Order: sequence, then C-alpha cells, then structure tokens
Amino acid sequence: MSSLTERKARLIVHGDQPYNAEPPLDRLRASYRTPAEDFYVRTHGDLPDLDEATWRLTVDGGTGPALEVSLSDLRTRFPVAMVTATMQCAGNRRADMRAVAPVSGDPWDAGAIGTAEWTGVRLGDVLREAGVAERVGLHVAFESHDTVDGHPYGASIPLAKAMAPETVLAYAMNGEALLPEHGFPVRAVVPGFAGVRSPKWLRRLTVQDHPSDNPIQAGDYKLYPADVTAETADPANGHTIDTMPLNAAICEPARGAILKPGSNRIRGYAVSGDRTVVRVDVSGNGGWSWVQAELERDVAAPFAWTFWSTSLDLPPGEHELAVRAWDEAGQTQPALPDETWNHKGYLCACWHRVRVNIA
Amino acid sequence: MSSLTERKARLIVHGDQPYNAEPPLDRLRASYRTPAEDFYVRTHGDLPDLDEATWRLTVDGGTGPALEVSLSDLRTRFPVAMVTATMQCAGNRRADMRAVAPVSGDPWDAGAIGTAEWTGVRLGDVLREAGVAERVGLHVAFESHDTVDGHPYGASIPLAKAMAPETVLAYAMNGEALLPEHGFPVRAVVPGFAGVRSPKWLRRLTVQDHPSDNPIQAGDYKLYPADVTAETADPANGHTIDTMPLNAAICEPARGAILKPGSNRIRGYAVSGDRTVVRVDVSGNGGWSWVQAELERDVAAPFAWTFWSTSLDLPPGEHELAVRAWDEAGQTQPALPDETWNHKGYLCACWHRVRVNIA
Repeated sequence: MSSLTERKARLIVHGDQPYNAEPPLDRLRASYRTPAEDFYVRTHGDLPDLDEATWRLTVDGGTGPALEVSLSDLRTRFPVAMVTATMQCAGNRRADMRAVAPVSGDPWDAGAIGTAEWTGVRLGDVLREAGVAERVGLHVAFESHDTVDGHPYGASIPLAKAMAPETVLAYAMNGEALLPEHGFPVRAVVPGFAGVRSPKWLRRLTVQDHPSDNPIQAGDYKLYPADVTAETADPANGHTIDTMPLNAAICEPARGAILKPGSNRIRGYAVSGDRTVVRVDVSGNGGWSWVQAELERDVAAPFAWTFWSTSLDLPPGEHELAVRAWDEAGQTQPALPDETWNHKGYLCACWHRVRVNIA
Repeated sequence: MSSLTERKARLIVHGDQPYNAEPPLDRLRASYRTPAEDFYVRTHGDLPDLDEATWRLTVDGGTGPALEVSLSDLRTRFPVAMVTATMQCAGNRRADMRAVAPVSGDPWDAGAIGTAEWTGVRLGDVLREAGVAERVGLHVAFESHDTVDGHPYGASIPLAKAMAPETVLAYAMNGEALLPEHGFPVRAVVPGFAGVRSPKWLRRLTVQDHPSDNPIQAGDYKLYPADVTAETADPANGHTIDTMPLNAAICEPARGAILKPGSNRIRGYAVSGDRTVVRVDVSGNGGWSWVQAELERDVAAPFAWTFWSTSLDLPPGEHELAVRAWDEAGQTQPALPDETWNHKGYLCACWHRVRVNIA
C-alpha cells in the first residue's frame, strides 16, 4: 500500500485538516470501478487510526441485549455480500454553484464521486441478528470513531433502507481492505444515498424511533430554498438529503482543452440515486442541439453509475460542450446552477458545461 | 347517474370520436379525490358498451390453464383492495409544448389528471390465482374491449409492477361503479405509471416474456429527443413511458384572471410518479423569486398527488405566476417547455406559468 502522502499527491486536495480531495476527472473516467487511490475522500474530522484486531461494533436498540461483533465475527457469522455501487458527496459539483454566488464548503468539481465493488455483510443481516424487527418509522443511527468539533461523527438512515439488500457494512473495496481514509476497518455503504449517510470507521449502530440527533444529521446536509441564508436556515424546514438526484458530467476533454480538428471523443458519467439513466444528451454548442451518447453500465449493479461517450466533429474556435441525462421517469436536469442554488451548495445537478478550443 | 351528454358538458372536450376531455383546472382543485364526472377522459377508440353480468376476464400465461373470472368472482374470490392514486395522461400539459413548436395529439392543458379512490382487487392476487410465478423479465399484457384502428387496445407493464401491492383491477371509483368512459365494468389502475398503462374495459391479461406488441405499447407512448420527427422516429430507440415525472400546476387563479389588489390565494397540485413531493416553490414574478407553499397530502396514499397553496400580495399590473416542485431526491423541474420538447408532446413538466392581472 502506498503511503497516505503518496496517495494525496495523486488527488486535488481541497483541505488537509479535515482531509478532503478528489481525482482529476479523466482519471475518474479511466475505469468503471474507481481504484481506491483515485477515490474522492470526504472527512469531517480527524482520520482515526484503528486496529482491526481490537475493533468492535456495538449494535443496540433491538429487542435483545446489545450485540457486539469483531471483524472476524462479521466475516464468519454472516454471508458475504458484494455490491457495486456509486458513492457521491452531496457537495459534488459545488464549484458550479459557487460560480453563481458564494456557498459554504469545499469547491468540489465533478470528482466527489466514485464507484467501487464493496464487500462485507448485509446490514439487514446484522440488524436481524441483533433482534431488530422491521417497523415503519424506525431509523438506524450510526456512530463513528472520527471526531467532529468534539462530537463523534453520526448520521442515520430509515430502517427500510438499512434492511434493503443493497445496504452493506463493507470491509473491502475492489477486493482489498479499506484504506484508512475510506473507513478502515468497516464503513457503511448505503447505495443511492449521499455519502454522508455511509459513515466510515463505524463503532456503533442504534435502532431508534427518530433520526440521529448528531449535528451532521440534524443540522448539516439539508437542502434549502435559494432565499435561505446561513443566518436564517432552520434545519427543521430543510429537506434531509438522502437519495441523490440525477446528474451527469463531462470527464474528457478537460476544461480549456485544446483539441485537434476532426472527430474528438467526449466521455463522462451519469448517475441517479435510485433510478436508471435511460438517455444522455451531449451538445457541442452549449445546448442549442444535442446528440445521443452511447451508454455503458453494469446491468447487475443498479446503484452504479452509467458511463457515456460520443464523438463530436467541431469547427475551429471555442466551443461549449454540455451534457444532460434523463432518468426512467422522463425527468432531466435543469440547464443552469441558478435553478437549484442554495447557500450550502448541495446537489448541484444542472447541465455540466466544459469550454474547449479546436486549434 | 347523469347521461354521457350531460357529463361531457361539464368538461372541455378535445374530441368526440375518440372522446377526450378534461375539467377546468379550478374544478380539478376543488377536491382531493376527483369526482368521476370531473375526471379527464382519454380514449383511443370507441366507447364499449359492456354488460357486467356477461363480462368475463381471461388470464393466461401462467403455469396452469387459463383462468376466467366474472365480476362476481372478482368480488367474492379475492380480498377487496382500495388505493387512492393519481391517474395522469402522458400528454398532460401538452398545450405548453405545442406553444414551442407543433406536436401531435390533443392540446391538453394541465387537467389530464385526476385522483380517485379505486376499489377492486390486487392484480397480484389474480395473477397468483392463475399460477403466475414471479420471474425477472416477464410482462403482463392487457387487452381491452375498445377498438383502435381495427385492433383491440393493448398495453403492458413489467410483472414486478403488476405484482406490486398498489396495482389493482378496479371496479369502483370513489365508491361507485365505474362510469362507461372510465372503463366499466373493470379497468387496471397502475399507480405512478402513465394512464396508457392502466387499460379500461379489460377482457384479457397475458403473462409473457416480452412487452405487448400492440401498437399502443410498441409504437406510441415513447419519449424521443427533440430532433426526432414523425418521419425519423424509431420506436426501438424511444424510451417507453411508464413512471411519470415530477410535475406541478397552478389551478387557481385561471390564466388571464383579473384579481383584486391585496392578498390572493394561489392553489394547485404537484405530483411525482414514484417519489414524494417535498417542496413546492411559487413565484409571483415569473421565477425571479419564490415562496414556499403549504402542502397537503394523504399520507396513506403515496401514489396520490400533493395539493399546495399559498397567498401572494402583488402590486397592480400584469404578473406571471409560476410553480415548480421538488422531489425527495432533490430533483426539480426544468424552467421551459423547450428543454423537454418532443414531437409527440409527451411528459411536459416544466414550470407551470399563469399570467394574471391585478386591477
């Protein structure tokens, strides 16, 4: 394993403490399953240094006594579960929103996303072992080993999503043990939901009749209307971000690229939290006209992204490339970041635009 | 029961043969469950005149012999199922798209939608009785008594949706037998899907390994990119319309209304095929700024629309009201009909705009 310092050098680092970084977009598009070293890192606090031999997970809130499991318990007492799923920060593409008006948070480009094959156990299997009954209105609260402003990191998801077959407690990513920055030894993977709901460095799960009251869940990660400011935001009136919206990005060519005349290959990703991407439109003229991209996906992985590509033959000069996707319900993306702008810069999902020059 | 002629007089009739009509929008907003007499009617052919005593439904394609059931069989051999669900034409709001460029089909305003309490039996119960096993890749093809261009009307849905608890064979609407124009004696109700997939005047269901090859399913009701014309449309490349997109409409005041100065009440509906509407924004200035509407829904009816209302205090003069909804994945609607325009005028779901005058 390369050192954390070496891995950081591969990424665009937005901050070191907490550590937040994303890959260049061409690297993101290089393979359908993103190598761990190229996978975006979003942390809110410190990077815990845990020992897999002494690590334990406590599960409480079921009908019986609290369950405590080691990593070897997870590996031996439960069936192995594998899911290829996309993970995405709620702030992915925030830079586009920041171009409209100031927003809080790191200026993520379209790289705060990645897809991996996650191996572990079904969260539902662990919850059932802990005597949890499926009842409407329950939530699973996660608590982690990292510390954010003096509190442990925490978040929650509805029990129905926790029990869904795609939701896992993962100890491996693309067949290898998790890297420290990706949650070693065990993290949650909640496919389709914002990454904030897939906590890393897990230490405790609690089944309860209300969402987590951790500031991450109760305060941050809410979607507000455009007229709400940091001063007027009332989390009780914000929409809790869980399922991620339809989105698409151009990964190649890069912004400002100088291309040769003739046919140029345009490549990117499209993704929707819980729906299938059925069409991707690509424009060589800022959205005045569109061509249909070819789509590539893993049919066995409904919670993973769709790769798309097409070729455009553009005349010399400057051109604005644009992309937008369509989901199975016939919904598409708004044209401009203004239409979904919010002061926290969440869920930027307008057409992605990249200006290039044909020399 | 009033006569068909009397009922037609209550509606805005787009065509008589086939009969297609929608209610004025204020009538649509008058009650959460739409009276049958005010419910839009979309027919593709004739209006069958059926006798409930001799009506039979044939179900084939299961492992056993074909099942044949009468209306009294449906009422006595299966548990009663009730679902409050919105039904909506794929062409709802086509008039807005027609304002951009010509489209085929009737110029529906925002009234090709309604919500009813449907009573009948679960389609899944009938399919299981006919020996149908749930297998991935199967479809349920419906055949009806109405005739379209010499063929019986037909359409299909994936078996998984047919087996879902919300999908019913309905013999009553808001507690009364179906009216002839709503499918008497029995119609399918497939909540969240376009109305075209909820056939009326049913006579046969077939479970098969491919979608219906009826022209309604195989040819019509496909979503195409904007550059596709009637001449170039290849149904194999169109997206089959099933789940309906997020949409919203202003039902009151009406277009061109002259309002008094001071606070005026604005009311409408919002709807999403298979997601929850979490926010509705209303603008008094064409979308430059927005206020949050109050929402009203039936929590026991996840496939029914959300009613919304708010008050606006506008200065004298002409104003463009606008509305847009947001779904639970943080997706919202495109601003303009141009962005989703297609030559068949399907799935018009841009911001709904209504110009009014304050006298």
